[in-house]
Amino acid sequence: MSKQLIFGHQNPDTDAIVAAMAFSYLENKLGKETEAVALGEPNDETKFVLDHFNAKAPRVITSAAAEVSQVMLVDHNEAQQSVADIKDVQVVAVVDHHRIANFETANPLFYRAEPVGCTSTILTKLYHENDVVIPKQLAGLMLSAIISDTLLLKSPTTTDDDRQAVKELAKLAGVDENQYGLEMLRAGTNVDDKSASELIDADAKSFTMAGKSVRVAQINTVDVNDIYKRQADFEAAITAANKAEGYDLFVLMVTNILDSDSDVLVVGGPTAPVEQAFSAKLTNKRIALPGVVSRKKQIVPQLTDAFNA
Amino acid sequence: MSKQLIFGHQNPDTDAIVAAMAFSYLENKLGKETEAVALGEPNDETKFVLDHFNAKAPRVITSAAAEVSQVMLVDHNEAQQSVADIKDVQVVAVVDHHRIANFETANPLFYRAEPVGCTSTILTKLYHENDVVIPKQLAGLMLSAIISDTLLLKSPTTTDDDRQAVKELAKLAGVDENQYGLEMLRAGTNVDDKSASELIDADAKSFTMAGKSVRVAQINTVDVNDIYKRQADFEAAITAANKAEGYDLFVLMVTNILDSDSDVLVVGGPTAPVEQAFSAKLTNKRIALPGVVSRKKQIVPQLTDAFNA
Repeated sequence: MSKQLIFGHQNPDTDAIVAAMAFSYLENKLGKETEAVALGEPNDETKFVLDHFNAKAPRVITSAAAEVSQVMLVDHNEAQQSVADIKDVQVVAVVDHHRIANFETANPLFYRAEPVGCTSTILTKLYHENDVVIPKQLAGLMLSAIISDTLLLKSPTTTDDDRQAVKELAKLAGVDENQYGLEMLRAGTNVDDKSASELIDADAKSFTMAGKSVRVAQINTVDVNDIYKRQADFEAAITAANKAEGYDLFVLMVTNILDSDSDVLVVGGPTAPVEQAFSAKLTNKRIALPGVVSRKKQIVPQLTDAFNA
Repeated sequence: MSKQLIFGHQNPDTDAIVAAMAFSYLENKLGKETEAVALGEPNDETKFVLDHFNAKAPRVITSAAAEVSQVMLVDHNEAQQSVADIKDVQVVAVVDHHRIANFETANPLFYRAEPVGCTSTILTKLYHENDVVIPKQLAGLMLSAIISDTLLLKSPTTTDDDRQAVKELAKLAGVDENQYGLEMLRAGTNVDDKSASELIDADAKSFTMAGKSVRVAQINTVDVNDIYKRQADFEAAITAANKAEGYDLFVLMVTNILDSDSDVLVVGGPTAPVEQAFSAKLTNKRIALPGVVSRKKQIVPQLTDAFNA
């Protein structure tokens, strides 16, 4: 069997990077020859994580078919979030915690999805099921991914499986999850020295809803005014991105990770489904969404339903 | 949480019926309230199995949305193989061993697919992972499903997981898998007292390939001449089905379960992808395919590739 590449989604977050590393280590222990790669450079938070646990970032690829004929996906399945030439390779395995859409195979495959907070939580279970010990460094990375995806277990996506995995991984990694977690999350919220166009692209995903191209980006912060003092800049950057990339609607979630609230900026259209999805009117192109922190659970399904209504 | 229905595909085979029963038993043990139902009456083989282990057939439904808002699928995922109103309910879990296609959700879900011979093999693993004991009767049913799907472990879809599950389930059920298995398979090959139109619909699945509606049916037999002595009848029945249901191409696999060969009858078009897929010319609308017994592994991917070429 020839080598297989494993990667997470475009604009990788900590889980997209770490889950690829964790799944590759497991698969190799089970006799496969795989390599974890990434579809982009690590963001500030992920850099902090890799530094902290003394790990190297996976190399970045722009084509899978140039190297292999088979790949494994982690933390995503939708083609438009994957490598550009995903249609030219065979997907033989997926480990994910998102909805399934725009995904199709000609052959049976290994697909493991669970509605939990983080791919690394599912991987923790896979290690157990296969009786493979999680090394200390990898445990630290996987712990970081869960803290990142669940905002330190405060997101509504958090399940008992995530809580149990965090407890176990923190012990294996030898860190205090709360102290380390807050430090890590803060490392990802440095926005002042970044341009608006960098920030709207750093953690952004595309969706097709009722034929419209919808982009949903998220910026974590400890004060939403760090973003909205530059609102005009952000509107201009989004308008430019919509034009350049053909997005119809751009929804930017600005999330306060300390309060677990979001203040959403909406540029493009139609905006009616947004107002309908959240039962609120846009004011100055914004809607305050108290308690909303999860794109996957609190934004995408509601928007999808409103678009299809 | 309100009740959830669990069911396999249309034209249910033994695995479609049994996997629903096995997954429902497991989910209920884990605290859910589910009911196994079916999208059709059991076939001759499944009737033999249910009789042998003294089990009742699940009731047949034609609508899911009339009863519940959430469902779980086993042994299929493609919408055109599922309940007619699948779009009106939420799929919260899937356990399957087929390719993924024409399947989309708005929300994260539990999805467990493995490229093994039978859904009941995956369910055997799920029982272990959740520390739930498989009752004797259910073990007999699950054993039957694996024997059925893998033709007594002779299909190329068979994996070590299937072999291990058969050994374990046979012990739990207290039967000799070879003796029982052959008796069971023969019970499903009674073709003489059935009409051609019944037989082409008993184990048939629809696929969309490059925009064409392709129907692939399979009839198990111990002598292909039991079918081909009535070839004209079969061609007429298929032509009628193509017209009534809008199938472009109908591929009927007539499989000798003792020799593990198929002799395929092809009606409708285009036929060029069929000849290309199997590197053989149609003679009298038929192609002999030695060693071919698996629709999923030896027919559908090859046809899909040829259609997309």
